[in-house]
Amino acid sequence: MATTLKIIPLGGLGEIGKNMTVLEYGRNMIVVDCGLMFPESDMYGIDLVLPQFDYVVQNQDRLRGIVLTHGHMDHIGGLPYLLQRVQTSIYGTALTIGMVKRQLDEAKVLSQARLKVVEETQTFQLGPFKISLFPVAHSIPGSVGMVIDTPAGAVVHTGDYKLDETPAGGRITDLERLRALTPNGVLALLADSTNADKPGRTPTEKVVEEELDRLFAEARDGRIIIATFASLLARLQAIMTIAQKHGRKVALTGRSLQENVALARELGYLSIPDGLLVDVGARVPDRKMLILSTGSQGEPHSALNRMAQGEHRQIQVKQGDTIIISGGTIPGNEEDVGRMLNKLFERGANVIYGQLAKVHVSGHGSRDEMKAMLEAVRPTYFIPVHGEVRHLHLHARLATDAGVAAGNIFVLNNGSVWTTDGKRAWLGEAVDARDVLVDGRLIGEIGAMVLEDRQRLSQDGFIVALIPVNASNRLAGEPEIISRGFVAGDRSKELLRAAQREIKRHFGRGKVQGQDSIRENLQNFFYRETQSRPVVLPSFIRV
Amino acid sequence: MATTLKIIPLGGLGEIGKNMTVLEYGRNMIVVDCGLMFPESDMYGIDLVLPQFDYVVQNQDRLRGIVLTHGHMDHIGGLPYLLQRVQTSIYGTALTIGMVKRQLDEAKVLSQARLKVVEETQTFQLGPFKISLFPVAHSIPGSVGMVIDTPAGAVVHTGDYKLDETPAGGRITDLERLRALTPNGVLALLADSTNADKPGRTPTEKVVEEELDRLFAEARDGRIIIATFASLLARLQAIMTIAQKHGRKVALTGRSLQENVALARELGYLSIPDGLLVDVGARVPDRKMLILSTGSQGEPHSALNRMAQGEHRQIQVKQGDTIIISGGTIPGNEEDVGRMLNKLFERGANVIYGQLAKVHVSGHGSRDEMKAMLEAVRPTYFIPVHGEVRHLHLHARLATDAGVAAGNIFVLNNGSVWTTDGKRAWLGEAVDARDVLVDGRLIGEIGAMVLEDRQRLSQDGFIVALIPVNASNRLAGEPEIISRGFVAGDRSKELLRAAQREIKRHFGRGKVQGQDSIRENLQNFFYRETQSRPVVLPSFIRV
Repeated sequence: MATTLKIIPLGGLGEIGKNMTVLEYGRNMIVVDCGLMFPESDMYGIDLVLPQFDYVVQNQDRLRGIVLTHGHMDHIGGLPYLLQRVQTSIYGTALTIGMVKRQLDEAKVLSQARLKVVEETQTFQLGPFKISLFPVAHSIPGSVGMVIDTPAGAVVHTGDYKLDETPAGGRITDLERLRALTPNGVLALLADSTNADKPGRTPTEKVVEEELDRLFAEARDGRIIIATFASLLARLQAIMTIAQKHGRKVALTGRSLQENVALARELGYLSIPDGLLVDVGARVPDRKMLILSTGSQGEPHSALNRMAQGEHRQIQVKQGDTIIISGGTIPGNEEDVGRMLNKLFERGANVIYGQLAKVHVSGHGSRDEMKAMLEAVRPTYFIPVHGEVRHLHLHARLATDAGVAAGNIFVLNNGSVWTTDGKRAWLGEAVDARDVLVDGRLIGEIGAMVLEDRQRLSQDGFIVALIPVNASNRLAGEPEIISRGFVAGDRSKELLRAAQREIKRHFGRGKVQGQDSIRENLQNFFYRETQSRPVVLPSFIRV
Repeated sequence: MATTLKIIPLGGLGEIGKNMTVLEYGRNMIVVDCGLMFPESDMYGIDLVLPQFDYVVQNQDRLRGIVLTHGHMDHIGGLPYLLQRVQTSIYGTALTIGMVKRQLDEAKVLSQARLKVVEETQTFQLGPFKISLFPVAHSIPGSVGMVIDTPAGAVVHTGDYKLDETPAGGRITDLERLRALTPNGVLALLADSTNADKPGRTPTEKVVEEELDRLFAEARDGRIIIATFASLLARLQAIMTIAQKHGRKVALTGRSLQENVALARELGYLSIPDGLLVDVGARVPDRKMLILSTGSQGEPHSALNRMAQGEHRQIQVKQGDTIIISGGTIPGNEEDVGRMLNKLFERGANVIYGQLAKVHVSGHGSRDEMKAMLEAVRPTYFIPVHGEVRHLHLHARLATDAGVAAGNIFVLNNGSVWTTDGKRAWLGEAVDARDVLVDGRLIGEIGAMVLEDRQRLSQDGFIVALIPVNASNRLAGEPEIISRGFVAGDRSKELLRAAQREIKRHFGRGKVQGQDSIRENLQNFFYRETQSRPVVLPSFIRV
């Protein structure tokens, strides 16, 4: 049997985040990206979610390296965890590698990695894989897609991209280079599906620049505070240029923002005129001050939320301030953002957000751009990546419209093993690619059962009933009840006393009781009384 | 001192929901609307939120009646609870009263209310208040605003409205009647702020009808399933007309939908041709079938979500089905909706949602409509209502633009007592208007402390340590640990054993220990080991 090419997405399919794809040819493996994902709101207490690395760890003798498309956390944030378990080379453009280096350093795993800076148009060989990068327009500089030539044929991975003709930073997605790199056609295309439910084209970043320029002109005498993602480095550059034009100094607040700006500046990705940056505490008149801040998602500890709460040490929001939220709201964050906006309005600020002005555009292409990509690449096989199930399916249908044979479109899951000999394609036996949950220092030790318990506890709290029993499981004293998160105050005391009586009544029927029977009895009792279902745990105490 | 007019919002300010406003003149009180609110996602375990009724209950001898603007839950849903505590007359148009009657009947408080059906243009007197209704365009038939003539001057309450020139049902907001009703000007305007952050005008409902007509034409051989709000009765009428035109039968699934359609039909608000409605189980070819369903918000038990989960008894979603989500996503529901959409796509359906087609428009006017309302009414005083803090502030600024004196615009809180003698206006001492949380059968018995406990439990679960001690609080046996929602499996056993050792070590220092000192010690221990903070409850057991 001929050697086959396998493509195994370990993350990013059926979800927005933790993008990670394995390519294998014979006994050679490369990995494209290694991201993390922020938890959904029903993942109680979880800090972040990682791809399942076992398959890579178990086959690390085959691993020829990791290639990164860009420096966003959903593409590089898993590396500090993966590098605890494997040693390898990591390839990326200068900014991407700079961001990875900082992360690995903080996690004390830098020595596990050989970091290799590559150019945006470089070609390099990893085992049987010839990788040729091409620049793409995205919201962070140094973003690339790649052509991966394999003995089975060429694979194209777009990374995150949009077909913006006037992007921040001026770097457009180079479809011409992509075509030149694939003279013999493309076997398989893996393309970003994030905006597959957005019609038309994503507006150009230029729109944001023009709108900000207008808002700067309108703000006149007041301070301007702009909250955005620390990783939108191309937009940060544009904002600094506009600030300079309007005679405003720029102060940065928020650690990730300060770090990213320092790094990008050091690597030549940000050009900031001398004297433009000032300290947040600097004595600058309001009409000459621009504060750049983190916190566009209403994150509790972000700089902008601390301002909203009146807890920022150096910045007090006041009447006359113009606050611009230059970042889309990530699904699940709507309520946090809304609460923060309310507090900022209460403090008298003029807050520009949402549809009030065009101060944010997506970094991902919309349906018309996806179609243009499909038509430029004309792949034999198409695998939509980077998206929830609905995005993958909508992207798949676009591919049919663009002329890809329906039978050659594969909507995969994380862990699917897409296999091809260059002529046919099929699915092998899937590998484990379940979410790995991180909670504090616990990695992968929190499973569905614990999350279910947390969900139940969050709804109705718990009751622990301490029940003294003798050796033959007969009641031998007063039951005691401990409870949190159920009911409080007088009603609580009354209920818990009634529950004690209920326990005694249950034993009183003369029967020997087991803990399960007591639990059921108490659960029914509380449901009858309150229509709530707290977690009930009876505990027998031998006396 | 002259008799004053007081306006006291008890709900709907600083929030979207539980709208309720008290008007008082001397010893006479009326109430406009009495709604409920669905909980925010950090109100763990709460089913719904009510206004604080105490002020009305304590002054019920003054209560001349309750006037309702329309039949949505955020305007009438509090009545079954209020009517447990007061007897009064309730005024509303036929559909509104029909919906109230059903609710009060279910809650067994119908005998507490004298229900009065009034016409959309009726004028009636409640004590010193002369109330003149005027029709407004909104997403449920029989919606009205009102002019309330008082000895201090005329007050206008818009209710929920949009200035749609081609609304479903054909009923436009009658600004001419409103002007005719206020020949001597308007003292105070209370107006809907819901869409104060949406520029321009809200698209007309006509857009939805045209888009649905197009989608029906495209669907051809497959079934069509439309999910919408059961309360969008005007749209339901339009959908039925379109179904009739395209030769499709209509089946209803979801209790609230079936009930609302039956009620609206009985009262003449819905005209449904004979033979159009069929049972969900009826044998009708796919190309002739339209299913109307609840569940546009991804609610776990809704009909559409049961279809998505494969748990609907009569309807299996399949390849070829066109499913249209004709309802906006309420903030906070994004993840539920997203998960439902994913499952529907997995089953092969063609799902139309979000920006993929114009299948939903808001029932509330946007900024240009708000401005038009302000300019039509030209009030002396302006009180924005129905909105979160940001909406109220944005609406207030619009009022300045529309010529209301800045000093005459009052952004109030729930419980504010806005007082006027017809010449000046000021704020009296506020009344209690805190949220009343409903959890199962518990009304107002769940407070901030219980919610905080639930929040902590949801993050890291709990630890109860049962510690046998002698009379002098010295360890007298093996500590036992009960835990849920913290860690599971081997790691959990190991951690809990280590915690037992930690307790013994703590006692071992020879000191007598108190429960507080044990708690602190264990909290530190778990944080050190896991960086998590479970709720820790040590319980001494005397032996």
